Amino acid sequence: MNAYANKSVLVTGGLGFIGSSLARALVRQGAAVTIADSLIPQYGGNPFNVQDIRDRVTVNICDVRDTSAMTHLIAGKDYLFNLAGQTSHLDSMADPQTDLDINAGAQLSILEACRKANSAIKIVFASTRQLYGRPDYLPVDEKHPVRPVDVNGINKLAGEWYHLLYNNVYGIQACALRLTNTYGPGMRVVDARQTFLGIWVRLMIEGKPIKVFGDGLQLRDFNYVDDCVQAMLLAGASPQANGKVFNLGSSEVIGLKDLAQLMIEIGQRRGLQARYELVAFPPERKVIDIGDYYSDFSLIRNAMGWQPGVDLRTGLDKTIDYYQAHHAHYWSD
Amino acid sequence: MNAYANKSVLVTGGLGFIGSSLARALVRQGAAVTIADSLIPQYGGNPFNVQDIRDRVTVNICDVRDTSAMTHLIAGKDYLFNLAGQTSHLDSMADPQTDLDINAGAQLSILEACRKANSAIKIVFASTRQLYGRPDYLPVDEKHPVRPVDVNGINKLAGEWYHLLYNNVYGIQACALRLTNTYGPGMRVVDARQTFLGIWVRLMIEGKPIKVFGDGLQLRDFNYVDDCVQAMLLAGASPQANGKVFNLGSSEVIGLKDLAQLMIEIGQRRGLQARYELVAFPPERKVIDIGDYYSDFSLIRNAMGWQPGVDLRTGLDKTIDYYQAHHAHYWSD
Repeated sequence: MNAYANKSVLVTGGLGFIGSSLARALVRQGAAVTIADSLIPQYGGNPFNVQDIRDRVTVNICDVRDTSAMTHLIAGKDYLFNLAGQTSHLDSMADPQTDLDINAGAQLSILEACRKANSAIKIVFASTRQLYGRPDYLPVDEKHPVRPVDVNGINKLAGEWYHLLYNNVYGIQACALRLTNTYGPGMRVVDARQTFLGIWVRLMIEGKPIKVFGDGLQLRDFNYVDDCVQAMLLAGASPQANGKVFNLGSSEVIGLKDLAQLMIEIGQRRGLQARYELVAFPPERKVIDIGDYYSDFSLIRNAMGWQPGVDLRTGLDKTIDYYQAHHAHYWSD
Repeated sequence: MNAYANKSVLVTGGLGFIGSSLARALVRQGAAVTIADSLIPQYGGNPFNVQDIRDRVTVNICDVRDTSAMTHLIAGKDYLFNLAGQTSHLDSMADPQTDLDINAGAQLSILEACRKANSAIKIVFASTRQLYGRPDYLPVDEKHPVRPVDVNGINKLAGEWYHLLYNNVYGIQACALRLTNTYGPGMRVVDARQTFLGIWVRLMIEGKPIKVFGDGLQLRDFNYVDDCVQAMLLAGASPQANGKVFNLGSSEVIGLKDLAQLMIEIGQRRGLQARYELVAFPPERKVIDIGDYYSDFSLIRNAMGWQPGVDLRTGLDKTIDYYQAHHAHYWSD
């Protein structure tokens, strides 16, 4: 039972962190994979992420804001995994219009292209737990009110809801996964635009102290990238997911200081001079900080049997191993 | 106690239905009023709406998407009543990108202009009950989940939330009113793009039957335009409104068939050949219909003492009187 064998699949953001891992999994399942990626330097795309499958995927460099290109790429596809986005919260505040154009405007034109030229396509949209804002209660389930605390959150919400609307009104099969913090090989590590864990890994490999903001007691949950990819594959293959939103998440909830400590143990075992320090919250981050967060992911577990398979210690070890071996492809000294 | 005497006030959408009534009220309170309006034919602007105050306001024809013009107009203003928008649900489905550009993109650039050039301004944003979608319960209060059923609702929500975000993050004083069905002199009557009551009034004056969709039992609440304007003036003058959302609404809840009957009584008393008929729901409207809706407006009543002062019979009579006298300025036979 393989939903993707011999299917045509488009992955937007496919040279990025999660997109490239997803493309790899799809190739393994026998799909004909096309990757669309803008390779905007501040975003997550990196050709090295697909170097091992480079001959088995079609890579098309284009921006999701390029309506004509996207219309062409969408035609004839069976599945669209729609992962391209602007992910930096700070960038969304500094340049809100670009965030709007990518996270809302381009999503609308992608959906319009599907409606006009390929209404049988199935879409999985990569959304984010950032939409919930500061939680009213924990763990956060899908019934929690949405209350974005930055421009990125508002625009991602619009992008997500367009998908559900096109499902409900036009019958374009679409569902959304609200990702929690995702980490693993291929994540952006040159800065914190995608995930703070990226910059932590880089600092550790460079022998510099990891910086933990505030008291380091903020709770978070994390998914290793392979688990996130597995959820996307399940959602794509599940007709009952259509029109719905599902949280991803993990039962392994951890404070940031403890996470730093765990990373340091792993790093030291790998011969790194690893340490961390607590630093004051930068004001521009404090104002959009959401306190503790972790997800209730029972909806997707009950609907599709998904749950995380990789624990933090294992996932972090694989991640650090990857960047020790390949860091030259992710940052220059 | 008059918050607006000798104050500089910008009203976007000021040649439109509610904007023109608001401009009139502000002029009466001694404000220096600048109106910005695009006069896009499909939207609500009509120069005749301000003919009685034409010499006492500054009219600037420009689109809210014109960032340069808006930046210039915002400079030095004490208040911004931000009413310009694309209001047609059907148009938002047919041309979602334009709806996004106006209802979200332009709002973001207006707020950026405030942040950069006039951070002391106070903004009142005209939002809509459409954001709630199909109600879970009635009357709908501000705690009701938002669940827009069309592109317009999603984009208006983004526009509203940008205002609250800029209040919370940057201290740009802003609040939003979620308007229910508003009616009265100056509303668009040439078609149903703004409110179905407009087209009802026109059909009645033309001697044609009013068309009530479905069984006519859908419940709604209505605000006469002067009551809506009064809420905006109160919200503009209330620092405690900043960062908040308030429903407008009415305790006079009525089914659409009964509303048609009431209009017909009023019309017949005014010598019109008034009648109505039930017609099947057009499919493109059925799919975005929200069933019964009426608001709980106790939040604004408790915070600012607002409540509707004009009952439906009085308001409809004034409205029909206005269009009997002035219809030549609103449609051509």
